[in-house]
Order: sequence, then structure tokens, then C-alpha cells
Amino acid sequence: MEPLHDRDVRGFGSDNQAGVHPDVLAAVLAANGGHQLGYGGDVYTRRLAELVVGHFGDTATAYPVFTGTGANVVALQALTSRWESVVCAESAHVNVDECGAPERMGLKLLSVETPDGKLTPALVDRRAWGFGDEHHSQPKVVSLTQSTELGTVYTVAELARLVEQAHARGMVVHLDGARLANAAAALEVPLRALTTDVGVDVVSFGGTKNGAMGAECVIVLNPDAVRGVQFLRKSSMQLASKMRFVSAQLVALLSDGLWLRNATHANAMARRLETAVRGIHGVHLTRPAQANAVFAVAPAEVTARLQRRFPFYVWDESTGEVRWMTSWDTTEADVDAFAAAVRAELAEPGSAG
Amino acid sequence: MEPLHDRDVRGFGSDNQAGVHPDVLAAVLAANGGHQLGYGGDVYTRRLAELVVGHFGDTATAYPVFTGTGANVVALQALTSRWESVVCAESAHVNVDECGAPERMGLKLLSVETPDGKLTPALVDRRAWGFGDEHHSQPKVVSLTQSTELGTVYTVAELARLVEQAHARGMVVHLDGARLANAAAALEVPLRALTTDVGVDVVSFGGTKNGAMGAECVIVLNPDAVRGVQFLRKSSMQLASKMRFVSAQLVALLSDGLWLRNATHANAMARRLETAVRGIHGVHLTRPAQANAVFAVAPAEVTARLQRRFPFYVWDESTGEVRWMTSWDTTEADVDAFAAAVRAELAEPGSAG
Amino acid sequence: MEPLHDRDVRGFGSDNQAGVHPDVLAAVLAANGGHQLGYGGDVYTRRLAELVVGHFGDTATAYPVFTGTGANVVALQALTSRWESVVCAESAHVNVDECGAPERMGLKLLSVETPDGKLTPALVDRRAWGFGDEHHSQPKVVSLTQSTELGTVYTVAELARLVEQAHARGMVVHLDGARLANAAAALEVPLRALTTDVGVDVVSFGGTKNGAMGAECVIVLNPDAVRGVQFLRKSSMQLASKMRFVSAQLVALLSDGLWLRNATHANAMARRLETAVRGIHGVHLTRPAQANAVFAVAPAEVTARLQRRFPFYVWDESTGEVRWMTSWDTTEADVDAFAAAVRAELAEPGSAG
Amino acid sequence: MEPLHDRDVRGFGSDNQAGVHPDVLAAVLAANGGHQLGYGGDVYTRRLAELVVGHFGDTATAYPVFTGTGANVVALQALTSRWESVVCAESAHVNVDECGAPERMGLKLLSVETPDGKLTPALVDRRAWGFGDEHHSQPKVVSLTQSTELGTVYTVAELARLVEQAHARGMVVHLDGARLANAAAALEVPLRALTTDVGVDVVSFGGTKNGAMGAECVIVLNPDAVRGVQFLRKSSMQLASKMRFVSAQLVALLSDGLWLRNATHANAMARRLETAVRGIHGVHLTRPAQANAVFAVAPAEVTARLQRRFPFYVWDESTGEVRWMTSWDTTEADVDAFAAAVRAELAEPGSAG
Repeated sequence: MEPLHDRDVRGFGSDNQAGVHPDVLAAVLAANGGHQLGYGGDVYTRRLAELVVGHFGDTATAYPVFTGTGANVVALQALTSRWESVVCAESAHVNVDECGAPERMGLKLLSVETPDGKLTPALVDRRAWGFGDEHHSQPKVVSLTQSTELGTVYTVAELARLVEQAHARGMVVHLDGARLANAAAALEVPLRALTTDVGVDVVSFGGTKNGAMGAECVIVLNPDAVRGVQFLRKSSMQLASKMRFVSAQLVALLSDGLWLRNATHANAMARRLETAVRGIHGVHLTRPAQANAVFAVAPAEVTARLQRRFPFYVWDESTGEVRWMTSWDTTEADVDAFAAAVRAELAEPGSAG
Repeated sequence: MEPLHDRDVRGFGSDNQAGVHPDVLAAVLAANGGHQLGYGGDVYTRRLAELVVGHFGDTATAYPVFTGTGANVVALQALTSRWESVVCAESAHVNVDECGAPERMGLKLLSVETPDGKLTPALVDRRAWGFGDEHHSQPKVVSLTQSTELGTVYTVAELARLVEQAHARGMVVHLDGARLANAAAALEVPLRALTTDVGVDVVSFGGTKNGAMGAECVIVLNPDAVRGVQFLRKSSMQLASKMRFVSAQLVALLSDGLWLRNATHANAMARRLETAVRGIHGVHLTRPAQANAVFAVAPAEVTARLQRRFPFYVWDESTGEVRWMTSWDTTEADVDAFAAAVRAELAEPGSAG
Repeated sequence: MEPLHDRDVRGFGSDNQAGVHPDVLAAVLAANGGHQLGYGGDVYTRRLAELVVGHFGDTATAYPVFTGTGANVVALQALTSRWESVVCAESAHVNVDECGAPERMGLKLLSVETPDGKLTPALVDRRAWGFGDEHHSQPKVVSLTQSTELGTVYTVAELARLVEQAHARGMVVHLDGARLANAAAALEVPLRALTTDVGVDVVSFGGTKNGAMGAECVIVLNPDAVRGVQFLRKSSMQLASKMRFVSAQLVALLSDGLWLRNATHANAMARRLETAVRGIHGVHLTRPAQANAVFAVAPAEVTARLQRRFPFYVWDESTGEVRWMTSWDTTEADVDAFAAAVRAELAEPGSAG
Repeated sequence: MEPLHDRDVRGFGSDNQAGVHPDVLAAVLAANGGHQLGYGGDVYTRRLAELVVGHFGDTATAYPVFTGTGANVVALQALTSRWESVVCAESAHVNVDECGAPERMGLKLLSVETPDGKLTPALVDRRAWGFGDEHHSQPKVVSLTQSTELGTVYTVAELARLVEQAHARGMVVHLDGARLANAAAALEVPLRALTTDVGVDVVSFGGTKNGAMGAECVIVLNPDAVRGVQFLRKSSMQLASKMRFVSAQLVALLSDGLWLRNATHANAMARRLETAVRGIHGVHLTRPAQANAVFAVAPAEVTARLQRRFPFYVWDESTGEVRWMTSWDTTEADVDAFAAAVRAELAEPGSAG
């Protein structure tokens, strides 16, 4: 089939508007040799299991799935009984970007507003109460996103403190790591430093935004904290029949440091963009670009004009805050062209369109 | 990445143990050019929409998803309110092979035993009753599988009669078409003859077993019968962020008749296998091989020995019935070698192992 | 308030068309002294707990609820994880008379047709398979109704055999005892002979049909088999704030043998009716009246004319089978008048109306 | 049965620790005449329907249920499709006191913190966004509690403004009226002034806290806004078989102004208590006692000692805020004795216990 052509949509809309890294695509092709048992009984899924142990430690078990929402919903179900609930940030993906998928599976989320997308022990305390009270859904999980939906990053110490608090209350910790690679790259620590080593119980590990075609993974770190993952993956419609093609993508990312190179690059592009637009009159940077997202407020008409040329999203209609995401394939030229366009718009606000 | 090697698992376990057809893989590669909007805002998903209209008629709308279970659960939710239920065969995939996924979304299935995996108007009547009675979940959908889980195929007339009955009762019809291609190939009719033209309301169209990597599609034929498909796809964790790579697979299958060539071949291999084993003393063919599956009863020890060399599944432990599936990449040599092995086992039952 | 008057609806529609036994009503009145802690922290609920231990043994714990559907759904949730399912008769109340309430809570029922409403080990085997297979919802509970929806009664030996089979497979047993009193009365055994002594794990104990106003009870016999009953009762909307008025009803029934007198009487009235109509030409008794229901087939026009004078239900539209239920307050005169009407209708089929 | 005796628990724990008003009990007794059709086919339920029309207007339809949680969950399901969600106050009963019952039925709540338990248009705006975005559960219902869980009361104008905003966005309004009687009494307006006349779509009308034994009611005011209430009531386990005894309680409350007398009295007792403790050094009244609750902060050790003699609840462990509820049967002597005890504790903090 010939490739179909479209208007150029390179921009800063999301790290999932990028394509697939060539090494990942090569791995998918290589996996197409002959018959393999379905549903994970293939050699690529076994290889993934070994790599996950290498990155996350001996207790780690990998369950490949299709989407981040799928990984989160499988993980949260495996951590809870029917009457237990999940503390999360108001801005958490599970709360605002999954069309109620957790609730459709019967999960109650106890969301709390945060200044920067990060929970703190004090914020958790505002929702984690009523233990033993039959009128109150029982708080059981603290769900953290690393890096957060607001482009911020928990330090290792912050994670450790939240895990310690949760465990002290008999709760467990889920880490939504759709962009865990970006956080590890930003902090210059291995993946296990943000997960296994601080006591996280289950991770949703993201591959898609990191250069895969569509591959995420539930990684169980504490087997005592979960029940029925394999059944929940199937009943949550996340079990791939030809799983080798999902696993091969994750194998490619987790081999030879591809995950780290991709994340490091995306982060660097965000910092480059932050630097380039800082100081432009009319652009107000609203959050530190700790991973691969830049958040800013710009005049609404400027935003509208920029969006015609560079896809990106308005994050908050009421404040005019916008989000500019970078990805593994964002180029310096992409950043520079965009920054120039921002500068031009704000220098001569009436000229473009 | 080098391809990983495994013991040879070519066999008759499932049409999902085959790999990806080269043309599908080529389409995936071709789709990797530059940025594209996520979640279906890409050119490949638009092209798929056109192809689906071509195959299924002007009212057809395509919603790509990951798995057949996902397609079924999205479709059934879109067809029902919270108090409505689904008549299906006891052997239906939705009933026995989805780990309760429909029920997890609140759907009640009204299953009924069938002799051959096919519903009939009389069988539907055994479950479609209690209309208006608040004690009784309201029967709303008749869900048919074509070709069935037992390798049988509904004729066009049989489908038409079931749809007519359903519509006369105010019910709607869902077609689980994980192997719709095989049925159309077997009957030598276009896809729409089994769906749109007989009045089916929604189809789960299968690509994975037909040579894709992992691509299925909810195809809405009657827009008046469904509500909220786009939201239900997301909340059922079936919305791909980099959807172009799912859509491109379906585009490849639905272009230039690839779907039909693949299905025709798989069906032919099943018939070849049926012919080859018919008459072997000790093998009892239990169902007509109308699509790409052969069902037979063989002695348990023979089955066990054959399984060591050729993966396949025991369908019914209590009767010793086994299922041999063929796929788009099954070769004549595969069939002949397997048939020879069966013959050898039954000629000299004590010799192998 | 003055009692409102209505046309006389004494009939054989259901044992829930009867009113409340005077002793139960007296207990409700007596419970209205002063303040009591809500949600079960009252003296009547404590007294009920003692009585339940007396009837069902030392391990028995009582959770009063509002309806039989509520009791069943709470019990089944407490016995299962999210991926586990429930084997039951096709005719079971949980399957056909609860508007999908179990499925709304995510429970999958594995129903199987029975000749007489009673499961057998062989019938259970038809549904209890696929253990460990992630594609298949895991069979965990065998749910029996005693006395059954078809007016039949399991013997003690039949129950024991079913429990033994279930436990041998790692499954547990739920007994829907909406009419457990009628079964115990029919078999002339204590309640525990049908439950605790044969190894049943959880019972839905019915009070409403036995003379209460609206009081049922989840009785846990095997505490190791259940999890979270108190939370599930609340999240299933079955936790009464002024619980004393529910508990007091059950206390009245379980004290001084009222439950047994009521059930014995209802059963006797069914046998009287069975005897009276047996031999009437045109009435075909379809099932043995082992508890408090008589099932028969009569000509449709006769049924229609009888229903104008005596409320009762057609059980199966396709066969013309009707159900005549007796209750704690059915009188001999009620039975005799009805039998006379049946006889008159069939003697002179054209005369009435 | 003799009444069982317990230690005196008269206090201020909840309006559901009171017993049943004698007129309600008389109505229950009167309803016990002969057979009646079950499930609402009785004369008392018909009478209730007439009374509800009288109080709420010609479009009002009544669906009696068992509990406030049941009424809320039935109402919210009837107002939403599977992908729609509910804006409510963080302190709303549906959010914090129903053990996740709404979520168990698949409902997503969009809770927002409020200063006083009352939503405002600005607070609704913080959660009602993302319309049409498939990633975001679609906001469909604004759920208000009147009087609120914090003892505050929306004015008619405030309600009208919230309804207008909701309808302008294509949303609908649910009113949790577990204590609607108290609000109407406080504002000295009829029930319809707070509901029908301002455009509320569905009400959960509370009887239990107003003097009933256990009787609540879903009242549909806008039939175009709801779907399937009768089926949802059954599948939510809220359908009483002997419904006449639930309906008769509500008939008693809604006849001859009993609801208003009971609510007016409870409110007056709260004001009396507020007046009595105001000015006691060490007691800080935290919210205006607009209905039948007084909220205050007192020293923890004083609270603990008071609780030994008078049941009441600590509302917020972190601040020491307590809640004192009055009910239809709270006496002036009850209030005065309690106020005296508070005064004594704070005058001589070391003396009691």
C-alpha cells in the first residue's frame, strides 16, 4: 500500500502524534517469523519478562496491554476489592482522561486538587479517611502519575514519602508511568529507583509515548498486593491474541537503552522550547518543564492562530493555559520554528492568520 | 533487533497463532510517515471509513478497536440501555471466551444451547420473553457469530430470518464477525450480503484472524440503533492513540480483496484437512467444516501425542472433541503432514511419542 | 389513617401478596421504643444475631437486608472476586427475576437448563469448567434455590452431594432460601439440616414470603468463604438506617417457631389445592407440589377467566403452564373456592366470564 | 414479642436514630388488610401517586424505594447514559456516605469542594467541561442536596440559578432530598417551590429521617429527562414486593401536613440547641443551623466525654468538628439537658466522665 498523504501536522499536540521509532518497527517486523502461541505464549513476551526483571528487579512481572487507560484500569482492579477506592490527583489521567473507564469497572476515585499535579502526604490525608466505616468506600490505593499530567516530576524522596505513608495506612501504591521514561531521564536515575526501590506496588509502564506503535505494560512489583491480573487483563479487553507484536515493541524500547535515549531527547526539546519562549512578552510560563511538556498562558487570539499551523491543545479554557508536548522525534528545527512563530505572533499580533 | 527463535509451533491451534500477512505489515510501515493526529484524526482512519462504506454501504461507520472482545463489548453496550440483555448461543465467544467482559460492563447475556453454534428463531424465542416485565432484564439484542465458534456458517436466508424476527420484536441484531471474512468466502457473497443487506444493525469485524497484527472494527450499519459508540470505545479501553497503525491494517485487508484471498485460502485448507482425515479409522468428524475449522473426536491418547508436535486445542474435555483451525498462512504441506501424523497415530497407536 | 379499600385480590399470585403476620406486626410496634443506634447497632439486631446462631450454628452471622434480590446479590459478591462466576439453574430467581441485578454488579451467571428447577452434579459439570483459563470467567459459586422456583425441594442428600462436589472443585455454595422455611417444613428438618450441616457457605434467608413485611437476611455460615459483606451490603443499597424494624420482623419469625408454623400451613394449603384439582379433566399437574406452589397446565381461555377472579400468574406462555402459590394466610376456604371455580370452568367451559 | 431494652441512647447522632412517628406506624398497621398485588399494584401506592401529584405537580411520578442511597442511585442512573457523569459537592452523601454505590453502578461523580456543602454556578463550572470530548466522561447531571449534609439550605433563587445553568448546558438536575422536608420547613415554602417550580428534574424524597420506618421515594418531575426508572429500581434492588407497607408510610407523611410538622419541630430543636450553646466558652459554632443540624468545634476530650452520655458523631477528625442532629422526636428537655452537659463540661472540664 502506498502511504497516504496529509497536510503536515507536526506540532506539539501530544507525544502520541509522533510515529514509531525505526528500531521498534524493526522489532515488529522481526517478530513476524512463523507461528507463535497466542496470548503471551511466545518468545518475545518471554524476553520481555526477562528485561522487566532486569529493569525492575526479581519480583517484577510484566503483563503487556494496549493502552495506558487499559494498564491503569487493570492495575487498579488488581489492587482493590469491590468496596475499595483510589486516591488520586484531580488532574490525574485516570480521573479526567479515561471517560470514566475506572468507574465503569466499579472503581471509586477519591480525587483531590493539587497545585502542580503532584500528591503530597497532606493531600492524601484529605481523602484517605473513614477506614472501617461501612458507609465509606475504603481508601486502598494511592495512584501517582510520574511524570505528571502537568509536566512535573516527583523526586525520589517525594515518592518514598508517599509510599511510606500509604503502606503505613495499609494502602498500596500504583504508579501511572505513561511517561515514566521521561521522569527517569529527567532525574537521571534508573527505572527501578522510581518504582521498586521506593516500594511502589504496581506500575503502568508506557511505551507508546516513548516511541512504540501501541504498547503499554502492567508491571507488578509486589505480588502480594495484587490478585487476578491475568483474568482482569482479559475481562478488561487488554489481552492481545498476537501478543508477540506488542511485546516486541517493549523489548525494543527496553533493550540497549532506547527508552532512555528517546525520553532524554524529548525532555531536551521541551527545555529548548521553554528557553526559547521564556522572555517573549505575552507568554507566561505556568509550570516548570521538568519532563517533556511546556505549559504557558498566551493571548487567546495568538493561541488560535498558532494552532492553525502547529497542532497543540488548550489545557484550560478558563485561563487560556496551553500545553506544548515534545516527543522522541521532535527536532530542534521543529522547536525553533515554533518559537519563532510565537515570537512573531506576539511581536506583530495583527499580522498572521 | 534479531528475531528470537523458538521451537516450531506451526499447527492448528488458532488462526491467531499465524503471523501478519506481508501486505498488512507493509501498510503498517507505510503509515509511519511523520506526525498524524491521534485517536483517529489521521488519514488512514479516514481511508478506512471510505472502504467500509464501499463494502458495507452508505450508512456504515467504522470504529477501529484492538480485540474481538473489545469490539463485541463496545457494540453490545451501544445497542443497549442498562436494563437490557443479549440473546446468544451458549457457545458464543461473548459467553464463554471473554472472561465475563460483557457482564463486567453490566450486560446480561441470555445464552441458549444450540446443536451447532447457530441460533434459530425458535431458540431465540426460548430466551426473548418477559418484555415490559420489570423483574426481567429486557431482551434487546440477538448476537450471532458468523462464521460460528463451531466452524458452521449461517446462510443468508437464515440470517435474514433471524433479523426479521428480532426487528419484529423491537430487538436489534449484532453480528460477531471475528471470522466474517471466512463466512463470506465460504458462501461466495460480498460482506454486505451477510450484514447490511439482511438488516444487521452492528458488526464486530475481525481483522486479526484474517492476517492482521491486531485490528478489529465496530461497524455500525444502523445509526438509529446505537448510542455513544465513540464514548463507549474510550471507556472500554479500545481507543488507540496512534490509531493510524490499527486502521492501516484494516485498510490493507479491505483493499484489493486481500481479506477474501486470505479467507478463501484458510477455508480451503480446512476442507483439505477434512478430506484428508475423513475415513481414518478412529477419527470421527463431528461438524461440517464450513469455514476454517475442523472438529473431530479422536482417542485421548492420540490427541495427547499429536499435541506434542502440532499445537491445537481440545474443545470439549468430556467428549474428547478437538478443534483444528486453519489460517491464511496454513500450507498444503502443513495439512498433509498433520493428516499423515493422524493417520500414523491411528494406524499404529502405540508407536509415537 | 383509614385503611384504603380495594377490590378483593385474594388469590394465588404470590406468597408476597399476603399481608404481615400479626406477631410480626406486633414485633415491629414493640421495636418503636425510643432511640436506637442506626445501621444495626440496636438491640433487635443483636437479638437476631443470637437467634441465627441458635438456628444455624456458632459460625452463623446475620446481615439483615430488604429484599431477596438484595440478599442474593450481596451474598454472591461476597463469595467472588471480579473474575469469578456463578453456576445456577436457568430458572433461578437470580437469573430470570432480578432484572439483571447480579450482572449490574459485574457477576456472570452460568445458567443451565434443568427439568425441575434443581441442579445436579452432572448439570453443574456442564458449566463448571475452564478453571485457570484466563479466557473463561472462573466458576466459583454453585447457587441453589431451596425450595426451588418450580416448587420442588432438594433432599438433604442431594444438597450434601452438590456441596461436596463444589468444595472438591474449590467452589463454594450459596443457597437462595427465599422459601427455605417451606423446604424445611416440607422435609420436617431444622433449618440447619439444609444449610450448615451439609456445608452450605452462605444463605439468603427469606422472611417476607414467610409472613414478614419486608425482611430478608444474608446468613454467612462459612466466614472463610466471604469477604467484605458489611461493605457490600451498603454499596448494594441494602443497609437499613432504622434497621431495628427489619431485624424485629426476623426475630419474630425465628422465635417460638413462627417461621415453621407459617411455612407448614402454606405447604398444607398447596397440597390441599393439588389434591382438589387432581383429576379435574382439563387440568394437568406438571410438577409435584413439594412446597407451597402448584404448577398446572389448563386451557388458555380457562386460565384467562380464572385470573379475573383470582390473581395468579402464567408461568410459561408457550405451554400454558400456570403457577398457583399458597401463603401463610391462605385459608382452606380460599383453596376450596378456587378449586370449585376451576372445576366449574372445566365442567362448563363456556359459562363463566 | 416483648420490647427489648437497651441503655438509653437518646442523643444527637442522627435523625435516623429516632423511632417511627405514631401516625406512620398506624398507617402501616392499617395497610395490613388482606391481599394486595405486590410490587406497587396496591391501593396505598396508588394513593401515594395522587399525593405526590398534589405536592409536586401533574407531571410528578413516584417510585417508592427503601433507602436514600437507593433513591439516589436509581435516579442518577435514570438520568444518564453509560458515559455520562454527575457533578456534586465533595461533601455530598452520594460521594462520601454510600460506600461507592454510584460507582458500583458505573456512575462517575465529579466532586468539587465547597465552603458550606452548597454548589454554586462557579463551582459547577469547575467540573462541567469537556463536552463532546470522547476522553472525558460527559457531565450530565448536577446533583444538589437540600438541606445539605452540612445543615445549610439553598434558597429558592440559588436553586433556580443552578437549574438554569444546568439546563443551558444540556444538563439535568437531581435533588437529593433526604431532608427536603427540613429545607421546605426552614424556608416556609411548599415542597414544589424547591423542586418542580424551579425546574428540578428528579428528586430523591426522604421519609425515613422525617418520621418513617424506612421509606424513600424517587420522584420524577421531568419525564423527558429519565429512562427506565422501573427497571432500574428493580435491578438496583429497591423494588419492594409488599410495597404497600413502604407506600403507606409516605402516604401518612404527605397527608395532613405530618411531614411539615415533623420537620418544623426538628428544625426548631436545632435552633434551640444552637442558641443554648452559643456563647459557651470553648464551643465554636462552625456553620449556621439552617435546618436540623448544629455543627461546632469543641475540645477533643470534651467531645469524648459528651459522647459517652449522648450519641453524636465527630464530623471531621482533623478539626474536631462535631455534628449534632435533631429529629422529629427530639424534645426540649433533650436539648436542654445536652446544652447543660456541654456547659458543665466546659465550665469544669476535669469533672465529668
